[in-house]
Amino acid sequence: MYVEIVDVGPRDGLQNEKKILTPETRAELCDRLSAAGLPRVEAASFVNPKRVPQMAGAEEVMNGLDRHEGTVYAGLVLNERGYERAVEAGVDEVRYAFPVTETFARKNQNTTVEEATALAGRLVERARLDGVRVSITLSAAFGDPFEGKVEPAHVLKIAEKVSEAHPDEVVLADTIGVGVPTQVRDLVAGVAQMGVTAGCHFHDTRNTGIANAAAAVESGARVLDASVGGTGGCPFAPRATGNIATEDLVYLLHGMGHETGIDLESLIGVAEWLAERLGKELPGQVYKAGNF
Amino acid sequence: MYVEIVDVGPRDGLQNEKKILTPETRAELCDRLSAAGLPRVEAASFVNPKRVPQMAGAEEVMNGLDRHEGTVYAGLVLNERGYERAVEAGVDEVRYAFPVTETFARKNQNTTVEEATALAGRLVERARLDGVRVSITLSAAFGDPFEGKVEPAHVLKIAEKVSEAHPDEVVLADTIGVGVPTQVRDLVAGVAQMGVTAGCHFHDTRNTGIANAAAAVESGARVLDASVGGTGGCPFAPRATGNIATEDLVYLLHGMGHETGIDLESLIGVAEWLAERLGKELPGQVYKAGNF
Repeated sequence: MYVEIVDVGPRDGLQNEKKILTPETRAELCDRLSAAGLPRVEAASFVNPKRVPQMAGAEEVMNGLDRHEGTVYAGLVLNERGYERAVEAGVDEVRYAFPVTETFARKNQNTTVEEATALAGRLVERARLDGVRVSITLSAAFGDPFEGKVEPAHVLKIAEKVSEAHPDEVVLADTIGVGVPTQVRDLVAGVAQMGVTAGCHFHDTRNTGIANAAAAVESGARVLDASVGGTGGCPFAPRATGNIATEDLVYLLHGMGHETGIDLESLIGVAEWLAERLGKELPGQVYKAGNF
Repeated sequence: MYVEIVDVGPRDGLQNEKKILTPETRAELCDRLSAAGLPRVEAASFVNPKRVPQMAGAEEVMNGLDRHEGTVYAGLVLNERGYERAVEAGVDEVRYAFPVTETFARKNQNTTVEEATALAGRLVERARLDGVRVSITLSAAFGDPFEGKVEPAHVLKIAEKVSEAHPDEVVLADTIGVGVPTQVRDLVAGVAQMGVTAGCHFHDTRNTGIANAAAAVESGARVLDASVGGTGGCPFAPRATGNIATEDLVYLLHGMGHETGIDLESLIGVAEWLAERLGKELPGQVYKAGNF
């Protein structure tokens, strides 16, 4: 089966790294990922650079890309201003993310879940008019840093409302890396039967990310986020690692007989290159152990 | 469902660490593990200490234990001399491991698969007479460092022969950490239907260990090896990490509704203690991120 992997390393990965990479280097990272066969890359974040200095220069990243026809270049947005910047900068896809719990929605984006759900609908409409793809992520869908456990029924209710707007996909995000495969299956199966493409975004905070990815694909998810080298971290668990590593995910999926269109050896090369740029060993395992 | 976890950290974990811990410290590690609720601990290795200096002093480890009634103390053996030492030293269980491929069997243990299978049968017989438990591990069952892919049918043929001797369990070991969940399901289901208890031993070399553990339990495995903190390494992939971390496995299993009898918070404390003894950060994720 074909599983589409979105490399969110240039955005979610790098925004949680201490070392700040220039827009030129981030554009080069995107180019290296597309050359390795990544069908989609989250290239930039159109948020306030004062809040996330690692992501400053989103427009320069987009301008610096050597765009590859087979790759979709996405940008994260958190509000309409960000949406406008992203479209102006030439993204192929806007990705809007909001938390499914009130406390996190307030603290992270100064909004409510109801307002955020409504905004998702408006952004899908605008994206249709502007002719760009649109992906909606439900953050903290597997657990919340402030409220703890999150009921699947609550998440599915929000997913239902969002899918009524017909985005290109609904992504369930385990923002703080607490999910387990049984939970993944319940949520993914629920979203998949809404007639919308189901995606998942896992963090390897508690080492369940790859197990969750396997469960997600088996339950009907067709899109998986990952970051090359497993860069990033978790603001709520300072010693923890970040997104699942793209090369680890590719190793798993290819081994299970799935297709990704990605060349694993090239991708391992990108992880090695990025480790040098960041000046540290990355959490990804396959780039250290090698393919088999 | 109850899943029995065997902490192999004092043996498989520490034998692959550069820093050598004294027999006293290794006995203390076992004591801390049993206090955290581990039902079984692989306490020592009765191999030639010239070949594995990290494991020297197996008898001292056994003598130094503050034995806990709820815990089974096991020792690894690779031949009859080792078996005799282990029984003499008072282990509750002998664990004999041998590779399923000729090249690895020759290089690692200077034997053939046929001779090793016969020895497994003899050790089961001797263990019955001596009144100790006996566990047989098939090494490199998911892939071989020299021969590459290993056919499940080949592994199951050996498992069949071994299970005819009626050991307490047959453990499928992914010695070099290359397996994926689909492969795990085929092998575990095959062994489970032989009427013997199926166990698994995973390394997190390519980050598939926890996904494989989830698949193993769902396919009928009732025993899983792991090492606290995820200590150890892989002689065939020098930059790779070791066994799956016990606390990561416990987090997964408890989250999926299984029981282990282990207190996760206490176990995290053992990982922290061990990280201090080894003077480095360990690969386990849950002890760094915390429980949820």
